[in-house]
Amino acid sequence: MARVHNFCAGPAALPLEVLEQAQQEMLDWQGAGLSVMEMSHRSPEIVKIFEEAEQDLRDLMAIPDDYAVLFLQGGASTQFSAIPLNLLGDKGAADYVNTGQWSKKAIKEAKRYADVNVVASSEDDNFASIPAFDSWNLNADAAYLHYTPNETIGGVEFFWEPETQGVPLVADMSSTILSRPVDVSKFGVIYAGAQKNIGPAGLTLVIVRKDLLGNAADATPTMLDWKTIADNDSMYNTPPTYAVYLAGLVFKWLKKQGGLDAMEQINRRKAEKLYGYIDASDFYANPVEIASRSLMNVPFTLANADLDKAFLKGADEIGLLNLKGHRSVGGMRASIYNAVPEQAIDDLIAYMQKFAAENA
Amino acid sequence: MARVHNFCAGPAALPLEVLEQAQQEMLDWQGAGLSVMEMSHRSPEIVKIFEEAEQDLRDLMAIPDDYAVLFLQGGASTQFSAIPLNLLGDKGAADYVNTGQWSKKAIKEAKRYADVNVVASSEDDNFASIPAFDSWNLNADAAYLHYTPNETIGGVEFFWEPETQGVPLVADMSSTILSRPVDVSKFGVIYAGAQKNIGPAGLTLVIVRKDLLGNAADATPTMLDWKTIADNDSMYNTPPTYAVYLAGLVFKWLKKQGGLDAMEQINRRKAEKLYGYIDASDFYANPVEIASRSLMNVPFTLANADLDKAFLKGADEIGLLNLKGHRSVGGMRASIYNAVPEQAIDDLIAYMQKFAAENA
Repeated sequence: MARVHNFCAGPAALPLEVLEQAQQEMLDWQGAGLSVMEMSHRSPEIVKIFEEAEQDLRDLMAIPDDYAVLFLQGGASTQFSAIPLNLLGDKGAADYVNTGQWSKKAIKEAKRYADVNVVASSEDDNFASIPAFDSWNLNADAAYLHYTPNETIGGVEFFWEPETQGVPLVADMSSTILSRPVDVSKFGVIYAGAQKNIGPAGLTLVIVRKDLLGNAADATPTMLDWKTIADNDSMYNTPPTYAVYLAGLVFKWLKKQGGLDAMEQINRRKAEKLYGYIDASDFYANPVEIASRSLMNVPFTLANADLDKAFLKGADEIGLLNLKGHRSVGGMRASIYNAVPEQAIDDLIAYMQKFAAENA
Repeated sequence: MARVHNFCAGPAALPLEVLEQAQQEMLDWQGAGLSVMEMSHRSPEIVKIFEEAEQDLRDLMAIPDDYAVLFLQGGASTQFSAIPLNLLGDKGAADYVNTGQWSKKAIKEAKRYADVNVVASSEDDNFASIPAFDSWNLNADAAYLHYTPNETIGGVEFFWEPETQGVPLVADMSSTILSRPVDVSKFGVIYAGAQKNIGPAGLTLVIVRKDLLGNAADATPTMLDWKTIADNDSMYNTPPTYAVYLAGLVFKWLKKQGGLDAMEQINRRKAEKLYGYIDASDFYANPVEIASRSLMNVPFTLANADLDKAFLKGADEIGLLNLKGHRSVGGMRASIYNAVPEQAIDDLIAYMQKFAAENA
């Protein structure tokens, strides 16, 4: 089959050029006579691959020097524990914002370690909006404030950063990172699973302000202590070398596209096209308040949910894959990450038009 | 450059056939129109890949039904914490055997959680032997007994299992797993980083007797609680899908070689050739007692350590890679895992002969 259009929320589409380079180098990386997978993590080749990946990421996101970049394993879910373990310090309390399913998971895990104050929640609004900042009940003595700038399931995105008056701001950017520029200096910690905009599943990125390192709780597993990983350049033990290599290729691809300013333009155009069509249609609907609609994850419903199955079947047949909404919310969802080309949006809209015309 | 012979201790050589298949399927897995890396972990394709990988592993190792097979992240080093966290239960104490650098790391981490009783140690013998079992100071009330059946750095291997009288036996099999059959039913927990005999770095295997699940300490991060992972078929969160796919290809390759009985024959032949040459030579030496010499990691020294650099340089030049011993012990080390072909041993011995003749 020809390459499909993949709207998966994660693991997500990767740039074709990246896959092609990985394919070409699979048996023999740049004349070294072996695969990247087979290289010692202490070899000059892998050290160079890691250094370049980190530098390219620093360039793309303009990460200041007083931030460490960590390549980890275990996904954002492992960081849900690592965050309170690393950051609580002498303080027992942390602030969390609840804007969807991923916020809730982070909160649930944090409650096992911390006195969690949910400063704002949109659960009563079925997670279709973001609570106005002036309603937030912030604790000036919290160890940190945690939020989820983009909720992958609900399709809700923050286009502003909370003002925390010095309390470290911690953000699960799994499904928004690298989609547009952010001011890293506003954050204490940015973390993200790789499998949306970074690379393959099995790699987790943590960007942490260095003054926040070194305060892990006694019970913290050594591998979850960010300072251990920072002090060892992400090589305290064998890191996921192949995943970092692929992430490095993605970073170079992003630079070639023009960096995050260019990606934001492309991503806004893609999202506006799709939301524009949905809003103009009587057949499809998106529940999220307009100012908080995600650029990356576009949930939508059909006028008649009985048609969901037929919609998905027809989409599958023409190579529009993974449009089913998350099982917790139903309906449809098109995840349109960096590697999903604009043509995929055009093809999706054409299919949606045709399906609506045939079933209205 | 042509493919080299890779004697790396890990990440290690992978079977050429596996890399070729991965290369061929990189852009389009079996007509699905996308890479395995791009597939949802909830897709039927990935579920099938995971199920087949697990079943093939169960077949290869004859894993009984009352054992769970977990595909995890974070390496053996993460398990160094997970083991006491999951197994201590009401007991505060655990037994550990110290036969080398990896034993020591496991012990160091366990001491953060448990009252650790080092029941036997070969440190006084510079880790060149295994303490006789009748000298071990076992605690009948220990939560478990931990040992390292193969020490990757020292090149020491157990060819027998400790008899624990009902105390769960826990083994870090990172560098011996799948090299020969083991009787899984003798173990409470077997764990291994993938990057030697299983697949690429970034995947960790845990095989655990099911009755040992469900006793994790309160402070255990959810992602380190084996029961959480077992209850969710290794998909509590997004698993390292591509690494599991590659491990699955390795398992199929092992079956095609004739399974672990056949691998043991091949591995014994390879190791005997190399040890035989070293022992017959006046120029090279291996320090380990004969009965405990590793089939997978063969450390050796040159008669004159001043020649180490020249030896390594000459080896590199003819594509015999990663022969440098671990920085903690010096000298040389040839890791000859499953995917290192017998021809590599022959070529290495030929080079060693030539080098000795020129430098004796």
